[in-house]
Amino acid sequence: MNYSYVSHLICPKCSTTCNITEPQHLCTCGSPLLVEYDLETLAEEWSPADLRDRPADLWRYHELLPLQDPAYKTSLGEGMSPLVPLPNLQEDMDIRQLHMKDEGIIPTGSFKARGAAVGVSKAKELGVKELAMPTNGNAGAAWSLYAARASLESTIVMPVDAPKITRNECALSGANLYLVDGLISDAGRIVGKAVEEHGLYDVSTLKEPYRIEGKKTMGLEIAEQLGWEVPDVILYPTGGGVGLIGIYKALKELQHLGWIKSDKMPRLVAVQSEGCAPIVEAWNQGLRSSSFWENSETIAFGINVPKALGDFLVLDALYETEGCAIAVDDASLLDEQKRIAQKEGAFVCPEGAAAFLAARKLRETNWINADDHVVVLNTGAGIKYPDTVNIEIPILNPGEELQSKG
Amino acid sequence: MNYSYVSHLICPKCSTTCNITEPQHLCTCGSPLLVEYDLETLAEEWSPADLRDRPADLWRYHELLPLQDPAYKTSLGEGMSPLVPLPNLQEDMDIRQLHMKDEGIIPTGSFKARGAAVGVSKAKELGVKELAMPTNGNAGAAWSLYAARASLESTIVMPVDAPKITRNECALSGANLYLVDGLISDAGRIVGKAVEEHGLYDVSTLKEPYRIEGKKTMGLEIAEQLGWEVPDVILYPTGGGVGLIGIYKALKELQHLGWIKSDKMPRLVAVQSEGCAPIVEAWNQGLRSSSFWENSETIAFGINVPKALGDFLVLDALYETEGCAIAVDDASLLDEQKRIAQKEGAFVCPEGAAAFLAARKLRETNWINADDHVVVLNTGAGIKYPDTVNIEIPILNPGEELQSKG
Repeated sequence: MNYSYVSHLICPKCSTTCNITEPQHLCTCGSPLLVEYDLETLAEEWSPADLRDRPADLWRYHELLPLQDPAYKTSLGEGMSPLVPLPNLQEDMDIRQLHMKDEGIIPTGSFKARGAAVGVSKAKELGVKELAMPTNGNAGAAWSLYAARASLESTIVMPVDAPKITRNECALSGANLYLVDGLISDAGRIVGKAVEEHGLYDVSTLKEPYRIEGKKTMGLEIAEQLGWEVPDVILYPTGGGVGLIGIYKALKELQHLGWIKSDKMPRLVAVQSEGCAPIVEAWNQGLRSSSFWENSETIAFGINVPKALGDFLVLDALYETEGCAIAVDDASLLDEQKRIAQKEGAFVCPEGAAAFLAARKLRETNWINADDHVVVLNTGAGIKYPDTVNIEIPILNPGEELQSKG
Repeated sequence: MNYSYVSHLICPKCSTTCNITEPQHLCTCGSPLLVEYDLETLAEEWSPADLRDRPADLWRYHELLPLQDPAYKTSLGEGMSPLVPLPNLQEDMDIRQLHMKDEGIIPTGSFKARGAAVGVSKAKELGVKELAMPTNGNAGAAWSLYAARASLESTIVMPVDAPKITRNECALSGANLYLVDGLISDAGRIVGKAVEEHGLYDVSTLKEPYRIEGKKTMGLEIAEQLGWEVPDVILYPTGGGVGLIGIYKALKELQHLGWIKSDKMPRLVAVQSEGCAPIVEAWNQGLRSSSFWENSETIAFGINVPKALGDFLVLDALYETEGCAIAVDDASLLDEQKRIAQKEGAFVCPEGAAAFLAARKLRETNWINADDHVVVLNTGAGIKYPDTVNIEIPILNPGEELQSKG
């Protein structure tokens, strides 16, 4: 058996193929590239039983990942995050079964670790010495820390307003970190120039093909954790949408391998903020690509992406699975965040709270049925966003007593 | 097979036994109580093969945990945190093999989740309605969130200076949260009075017997992750010391069961800060208990415990395993924290950094040998402590370019 059954790269727009032995970025047509595997051979040589004694991390699926030589594996133990049942919340929402895929329980505290682990490992295998990216925070944190582990240099540019904790993570990793007094698009322009002029390896969202493969493992894990079944609905907070693209890709690959027996596909839901909802607008109009969202703003910083490079792949996944796109408002998502903590003891990130709120709203309109099985992605730990919680707390003097038990 | 093989509680000081069917706190002699199991029967009926298909969380060891009815299990998927190899750091320290048990990869972002999961589950089983505790932050965060999940009320009192993120976690959980303009000892007095007057269930460190059992699972996991072998040295940042007591208890139980074949026990190391080192002082003098450390102060807030209720159990574990106790200074542990991020991509908490620094120092004095296998506990995620990182970062205007690649 091979360590990986990766075969080549393909452009989902113009079907051009590329090799996986050299660094690749976008297709000449401008589209992101997708990774293809020899699924025919893999279906014959690999079965779920092979996973039985493997560690509970994303590398248990190495046959379906692009890294060819395990010597370059760069891992901090990421993956197999818990799929947590939420009995109290499902009752509150009147949904038969509700699970949270909790991506707060992962190195660097967000799902970005998956893309970084696989992306950095492959970059190292390809002989890359230094990578560069713009970031709204979590991606930069993950990529710079995994780069440090792989002894790669990294150049990271982030808006000054990005969450301070993610800035700390980049700084501590020893990255060449710059803040820009502007938006992620400004950071992107600065990185683009630096890539051109200094020959850095561009790991901006979807500008290298391997991040999707890391994110894909969320889909592989959900299927495995449900005994190789799929739920009825999966909700995903959507900025760049890489996770949604990846989950869809994973489930199709598992069907192709025969590991998921039915041809049922969950309805995929892209959740955005009302302050930045380009995918929702495109979906409402039945379009296959989105338009740049002017003056975007939301407390859910991770989904503040005015125009995603892979928007057409996200929209395709929504149409093909009979899913939908929905936007929620910031104030209500903060209420939902509090409700989840009080009912289930989970402190989700604002992006995750947005996805839960979307489930609630879609249930209210009966788009989600009472007997559906719903999985919500919480893409990061709530503790990374200390400024989203504002609750008045009484202060006592050392000698004081509590007047009542509460 | 029973779900649990728990039998009774025993006082390690005066050998008094108590039942496990009613709420219990300290022994009448003032000592914490320890949980005993029917290890003879368990050894006959249970083997490592039984774990093979169980989920990767701490409940895989339920036979060796105190909860008797799984209906009361209160879980957010905690446990089986990664045991991460650190090839770059081990070379830097000249140690044959160095692993980090990364307790940042767990619900609530700290190892306190283990004690809370098991403690809250058992409290629920015992019919408790409301619990109370003083906290320096992480324990309160974990217990209040797990209490929320179990639909128990909680009253939490913490110093105003405790890390803001942990305060957020408690507040968001819906706990009755109070800040005290003083130290954890002041918080403890307020909770003590409230427990007396309002009949709350006291879950202060070691005042209920089940938190140790949750922490114990770190030891069970280390042994399983190493293929039922033990390392030569385990270093643990020591405040209340519950984790160290638990790990020692776990390894002895595994030896008793015959799962660990050799009678070798790792040398256990209690790591403290120079600003609060009561265990180190006691160990240096060969004493079996510690004295209150006046005016304690350290940036590693979690190990700022001037006098631990279980100090004698910690010291016993050090003497019995030929371990030691060592203190490190705050400035050097922050340097170590940065070094770990840059060499291994791991952002550890200050307490974890203290333990790594202790390993480095013990290697320098040859207390740790070059051919030892060393495991360091990182007790929480570095992202929970945003104020420990202070690095100057250049700010660019949107139109600017990077002058060099770095």
